Amino acid sequence: MTTIAGTSPYTGELLGTATDASTAEEVEAVVGSAMEAVAYLDRAGRSGRAALLRAMAGGLESNSGSLVTISDQETGIGVERLSGELRRAVFQLRFFADVVEEGSYLEAVIDLPADTPMGPRPDLRRMLVPLGPVAVFGASNFPFAFSVAGGDTASALAAGSPVVAKAHSSHPETSRMSFEVMSAAAASIGAPEGVLGIVYGQRAGALLVSHPDVRAVGFTGSVSGGQALMDLIAQRDRPIPFYGELSSLNPLIVSRTAALERGSEIGAGLAASVTMAAGQLCTKPGVIFVPAGAEGDRLVAVFAEKLAAAPVSPLLNQRIFDSYGEILSTLGAVSGVTRLVAGPDPSEGGFRVAPALYSISAKDLRKDTAEECFGPASLVVRYTDHAELLQALELVEDSLTLTIHIGENEADFTEQLTKVGLSKVGRMVYNGYPTGVAVSWAQTHGGPWPATNSVHTSVGATAIRRFLRPMTWQNAPVSALPAELRDGSCLVPTRINGRISMPDGYTEK
Amino acid sequence: MTTIAGTSPYTGELLGTATDASTAEEVEAVVGSAMEAVAYLDRAGRSGRAALLRAMAGGLESNSGSLVTISDQETGIGVERLSGELRRAVFQLRFFADVVEEGSYLEAVIDLPADTPMGPRPDLRRMLVPLGPVAVFGASNFPFAFSVAGGDTASALAAGSPVVAKAHSSHPETSRMSFEVMSAAAASIGAPEGVLGIVYGQRAGALLVSHPDVRAVGFTGSVSGGQALMDLIAQRDRPIPFYGELSSLNPLIVSRTAALERGSEIGAGLAASVTMAAGQLCTKPGVIFVPAGAEGDRLVAVFAEKLAAAPVSPLLNQRIFDSYGEILSTLGAVSGVTRLVAGPDPSEGGFRVAPALYSISAKDLRKDTAEECFGPASLVVRYTDHAELLQALELVEDSLTLTIHIGENEADFTEQLTKVGLSKVGRMVYNGYPTGVAVSWAQTHGGPWPATNSVHTSVGATAIRRFLRPMTWQNAPVSALPAELRDGSCLVPTRINGRISMPDGYTEK
Repeated sequence: MTTIAGTSPYTGELLGTATDASTAEEVEAVVGSAMEAVAYLDRAGRSGRAALLRAMAGGLESNSGSLVTISDQETGIGVERLSGELRRAVFQLRFFADVVEEGSYLEAVIDLPADTPMGPRPDLRRMLVPLGPVAVFGASNFPFAFSVAGGDTASALAAGSPVVAKAHSSHPETSRMSFEVMSAAAASIGAPEGVLGIVYGQRAGALLVSHPDVRAVGFTGSVSGGQALMDLIAQRDRPIPFYGELSSLNPLIVSRTAALERGSEIGAGLAASVTMAAGQLCTKPGVIFVPAGAEGDRLVAVFAEKLAAAPVSPLLNQRIFDSYGEILSTLGAVSGVTRLVAGPDPSEGGFRVAPALYSISAKDLRKDTAEECFGPASLVVRYTDHAELLQALELVEDSLTLTIHIGENEADFTEQLTKVGLSKVGRMVYNGYPTGVAVSWAQTHGGPWPATNSVHTSVGATAIRRFLRPMTWQNAPVSALPAELRDGSCLVPTRINGRISMPDGYTEK
Repeated sequence: MTTIAGTSPYTGELLGTATDASTAEEVEAVVGSAMEAVAYLDRAGRSGRAALLRAMAGGLESNSGSLVTISDQETGIGVERLSGELRRAVFQLRFFADVVEEGSYLEAVIDLPADTPMGPRPDLRRMLVPLGPVAVFGASNFPFAFSVAGGDTASALAAGSPVVAKAHSSHPETSRMSFEVMSAAAASIGAPEGVLGIVYGQRAGALLVSHPDVRAVGFTGSVSGGQALMDLIAQRDRPIPFYGELSSLNPLIVSRTAALERGSEIGAGLAASVTMAAGQLCTKPGVIFVPAGAEGDRLVAVFAEKLAAAPVSPLLNQRIFDSYGEILSTLGAVSGVTRLVAGPDPSEGGFRVAPALYSISAKDLRKDTAEECFGPASLVVRYTDHAELLQALELVEDSLTLTIHIGENEADFTEQLTKVGLSKVGRMVYNGYPTGVAVSWAQTHGGPWPATNSVHTSVGATAIRRFLRPMTWQNAPVSALPAELRDGSCLVPTRINGRISMPDGYTEK
């Protein structure tokens, strides 16, 4: 029997508690329970699902102490940051409760019978309905906010789709405890156990995405991990959507003016952004374009100085630790690359590493020079003019974000780079840093491949759309219609005959 | 050099005009032009794209005579029905112009800076942006409304994505003429030629979906054709969304009460629905559940009588003609199946066939008994009670539609079948027929696999969502924002800090 146990990033040693990998029968049973919970989530309606999300949020909040302790043991992310991340997961569950109650996400539409240039139109009423059980594969770097208790789970449950999570091998006990706390909260309000399930081990994960009753997959992880699941999905009799958030270099560009005006400040800001969570954020700026010459030198000097002074911190697991060393040693050997800050320092024990900074001229940059690297490292690319910058940017893979630091009176430059962003990323950041992804209505955490493989966001209100599909009722008797599509009181924002109507009192939230 | 030519369904003979298959260089050039048109469609804005769609609609309308003539030669669908279909395509282009002008499809959201439980939130503004060039593979059975001039093209252009259509081998001249008329209309308002392109031949189609600059595929056709394209897409370095509308049995259920009350009327309605467009509609009712015994006999008798009296009509092409004969001969040989109306009558010449009707008891139905059959044929399934009906329904593949005919006081039965529909189809039809798919805001033409592989509709306003992705601007200077996201006048329905605001005068359309 395979067992799953975490490893301490502080010591590199296996942690005490081991879990048996789920058997095929267990996977079957968990998916079976999820199928049984579909009817409950439908019956519960929007208010019932909002209550479920809030109960789960409350459960996590009440158990934050032990959740943070165990997750720090498994991830080495640190108690302070993990406490913040747990607050984020709690906030996110409550946010989706609000989203469900507000109800716009249903995209309710009523076309009353009418004569049209195409002849008589029947009574047509449409809204979005849940897909069915969703498999959720969380991320190593966010044991709460992008894992069992994370955004995929919150948005799928909000949609009315039961969730089966696959416990992450880097934090199995955090996964288990999150699951137990959320399940207990669900039970406390009378929800069946199938609303949230969990399975352990890689084989169980494979069985899960291949299971005929699983109707969508949410995944946050590496391109190779995502590709492996996509290959399994391609072999299914019945294709299902796979929503992968995969890889991102997050180019950041500093204009000549910005470098002159705020070089030191940006250098310090970059060091903070690159070392946040030991550089293991999917929005870490991985390639930083800085003007060549004196204008950029001060920024780079401060950036390097702050990085060199930053503490040595543990990476999440052995694979990421090994990969950090390998990627940087490959990068260091590239012709034209200079090492500005030293990097890996394995002497400290566990999976601890030191920050690293490399530099290259834009003219020497090649398509494979920069690749995503989990860990506190970044590559500075020095450019001489806009033409060289734009050419070099084309060599950077599409990403989650593109950030630009600009000075006053650079509207043309800004517009030009915004256009680049429109074809390459899902979020443009101006005079800021891409790390820090607010959970809100307007957020996009997504982007063209390889950032994601989807046309959706995995953070923010509209992440819910991934687990829904449209359904139309034609000439339906009132008893067959969902409450939101019945005549009379408008419960949610509803498009009637082409124009949106609001529920009474809608604006006075 | 391969050439493409249509065949007359009336005579079975090759039509005069042949087109050379597009070479790899030609495909490259067409996609290159499409890429160049991306910036134009962006600059044109919503009003410019609405004007483009309306110009194309006008062009098709002005050339309707010759378009209908050539398409009748290639498809045998008949002048009257094709005239109606062309009106539908024209209406659809204008409808999407309205959708673009109304602007809700952008899903504009503004989160102003605020303090949140997660700390300060930056200024975040989000809307949907076009994906880039879209490949459109039209359907044999709708040479206008689901082909070059069809809904995929209209919704992609509305989204701001240039289109490259692959001419259908069953109606290459209709495809070419549609393309020429729409291109001339585009040129007349100053649009570059890349907004709409066309390629000919199967190899060109394969090159198109494999091209790195093609960012999405719209497809209407068979499961096998769709699967072949999905396999090609799976081999791409960069995955892209494939929106396939594939196959549908469209189960229709008649309750005992409805059969008693309106048996003759429903029988006649079914015959009309099954023979419409020679039974080649993707929403044709292919499996019809009728109560066993005297209550259902009258309905079946009228249905059979009307079908037997219906005219012999040509099918679209040799493949469909051959397949019609094969499917029915397989079905006729199934144990328990009775032939009620005779079917194929190849003596009439061309691809003409006669309607056919088969019957089976629900208890004898197997998963593979009913398969989608293009042509004027259907299978009646006689059920004795609700339990038997529900069990038999489970054997029917998920579909675009589920239709129920019910009497008064059958709310429980209706609710039960609506629940079945919620897990199996994209549109529930009550006391009507699934054929006839209105182009409107509330329409859904989609459903679980194998009906489609997507969580979207291919007909109606929201079809536009398929060719868009979300984009967020964080702390952007006003000059970098699209007009719709700037402060001040609200141009489109916009969610601001979580609540939707309407443009001035919005309701007075």
